[in-house]
Amino acid sequence: MSKIAVLGAGSWGTALSIVLADNGHDVRLWTHRQEQAQQINETRRNEKYLDVEIPSQIDAYSNLKDALSNVSAVVIVVPTKAIREVCQQLNEVTQDDNVTIIHATKGIEPLSLKRVSQMIGEELEGYQEEDIVVLSGPSHAEEVALRQPTTVTVSSINLENAKIAQDLFINEAFRVYTSPDILGIELGGALKNIIALGAGISDGLGYGDNAKAALITRGLAEIARLGTSLGANPLSFLGLPGVGDLIVTCTSVHSRNWRAGNLLGKGHKLDDVLTEMGMVVEGVRTVKAAYQFAKEQQVEMPITTGIYQVLFEDKDPKDIVEQLMNRTKREEMDDLAKLLMERYS
Amino acid sequence: MSKIAVLGAGSWGTALSIVLADNGHDVRLWTHRQEQAQQINETRRNEKYLDVEIPSQIDAYSNLKDALSNVSAVVIVVPTKAIREVCQQLNEVTQDDNVTIIHATKGIEPLSLKRVSQMIGEELEGYQEEDIVVLSGPSHAEEVALRQPTTVTVSSINLENAKIAQDLFINEAFRVYTSPDILGIELGGALKNIIALGAGISDGLGYGDNAKAALITRGLAEIARLGTSLGANPLSFLGLPGVGDLIVTCTSVHSRNWRAGNLLGKGHKLDDVLTEMGMVVEGVRTVKAAYQFAKEQQVEMPITTGIYQVLFEDKDPKDIVEQLMNRTKREEMDDLAKLLMERYS
Repeated sequence: MSKIAVLGAGSWGTALSIVLADNGHDVRLWTHRQEQAQQINETRRNEKYLDVEIPSQIDAYSNLKDALSNVSAVVIVVPTKAIREVCQQLNEVTQDDNVTIIHATKGIEPLSLKRVSQMIGEELEGYQEEDIVVLSGPSHAEEVALRQPTTVTVSSINLENAKIAQDLFINEAFRVYTSPDILGIELGGALKNIIALGAGISDGLGYGDNAKAALITRGLAEIARLGTSLGANPLSFLGLPGVGDLIVTCTSVHSRNWRAGNLLGKGHKLDDVLTEMGMVVEGVRTVKAAYQFAKEQQVEMPITTGIYQVLFEDKDPKDIVEQLMNRTKREEMDDLAKLLMERYS
Repeated sequence: MSKIAVLGAGSWGTALSIVLADNGHDVRLWTHRQEQAQQINETRRNEKYLDVEIPSQIDAYSNLKDALSNVSAVVIVVPTKAIREVCQQLNEVTQDDNVTIIHATKGIEPLSLKRVSQMIGEELEGYQEEDIVVLSGPSHAEEVALRQPTTVTVSSINLENAKIAQDLFINEAFRVYTSPDILGIELGGALKNIIALGAGISDGLGYGDNAKAALITRGLAEIARLGTSLGANPLSFLGLPGVGDLIVTCTSVHSRNWRAGNLLGKGHKLDDVLTEMGMVVEGVRTVKAAYQFAKEQQVEMPITTGIYQVLFEDKDPKDIVEQLMNRTKREEMDDLAKLLMERYS
């Protein structure tokens, strides 16, 4: 059994710690808040984030150096905007480059348009982008903590590292697949939040299941088109971190992105929605990034463009839907099929 | 504007008639029940199937010869098991082979494993399989009748015929894409009912969103694998008649297949479920067909096999889930990626 540090004691970090503890590993769950670490160690609960019993094999730490002592793997589960800072803190306390680095964060860095593994590869001394492993898939933390059946995918350019991560996490309630396509996995996980916003807007406008299914499906084709143009395998979007995660996000009223979209569809303005929700809505930043990506890559993304216009140009969502429904007649999969043929021929 | 016959006055046939009437066509809605035709013509309602106002441009007929007089297109919307019989009736009353034949029926013929366009091509005098058009996509009939935004795909080996169908149906609330892959469209529409049964079983067992998303996603990979091995384009399963229809079917409690699965998950036996529901559950027959297909094609379909064992071999669904979660470790998209490379290289 291994010693493993999990950085970030939110709901997902806590749930992943429980999976590792169930597999017999010695888990150090790190949070930068000392009182949270103390609460976990004393009460065996992390109430604010995930209200379940924390197994005794998990110790919480607020001192990063202590948490990292003699670990063979580090799992990074902090928000996208904290990734670089956490990596810099890691550099200060450890010089061990034999540790497997896994991240479970979904996002794209604004402006630079970098994926999380790229950011980690740039910051972490002794590591390259190709060493990093991503873990992603359709997974409410609450259900994972209750040992409900869950499936995820791990991926790394270095497939050996992905296999190490698979071995650490896999058990009878938590099935872990590998994939060689880290680009598709990371882009799918981040970009799907755009579609969740769109699904919320559609529901907020009072449209039905047909409209939502259309939006999810055409949105998926769109992000697959963008991802493929950037080098991802289109099949990844058909997988667990693509379709699977999209289904969970777009059909759950607990999704922040869906909730924000729903308010927009009901006629609220973006600033009011963000104030009302009082937390980060990753999808809003991702729409900007994707819009920029699409322009650079000259990829047609009518749904993302429409959502961008609703968010940042004050367009009426009803007009956007009308516009989407009245585009020129076309083949369903033409662009994607073309990209695919280029890829494999 | 055209004269068009719609054969089958259930909820979907009625909804498609309304789309055609909205587009200014002269629609003849045929039903073999004289009293139903009379009711529609006299009351402008088809209450038992779709409780909306029927536009005046729709006339109901119970005489097939009258319904077909001078039409330029026929839309067949009868259950799979009635397809051959209706085609034989058509042969008796018309010899016109310049009519565009479109069908909107989802199913596979048991034993022969034929798709609906194949069955029509075999039966209808003057027509081949390649002439026939299929129309499929995520579409509750009720929402279509209310002019809620809806998207579907039409497909035919003869793409000109698909374009004729696109022109007949497309309007601002009903967006119609074309696709050259009739195999993928027809197989996707039929096979997705297996996954809907599985999603119902998962919910019936009390599992959560993670398990259902896993089942839908891995199920989709499985039917894409089977479809691709039969010659379909895997991208079709990423489209409206694939993922899109699957989402609508698996997340709607109105789906018959989901409901049947849900009862099975709760421990009821198949015979009791079918008696209790009192209607045809297409997915049950499709599981048999797919199981047979998979054996012939030597395609691995663990989820379909598991559902087959629950339905016909009295296996406990809980054991099947455990079995699925504990298969050997693997890559997520390995088989499908291999098939795809063979296809495009």
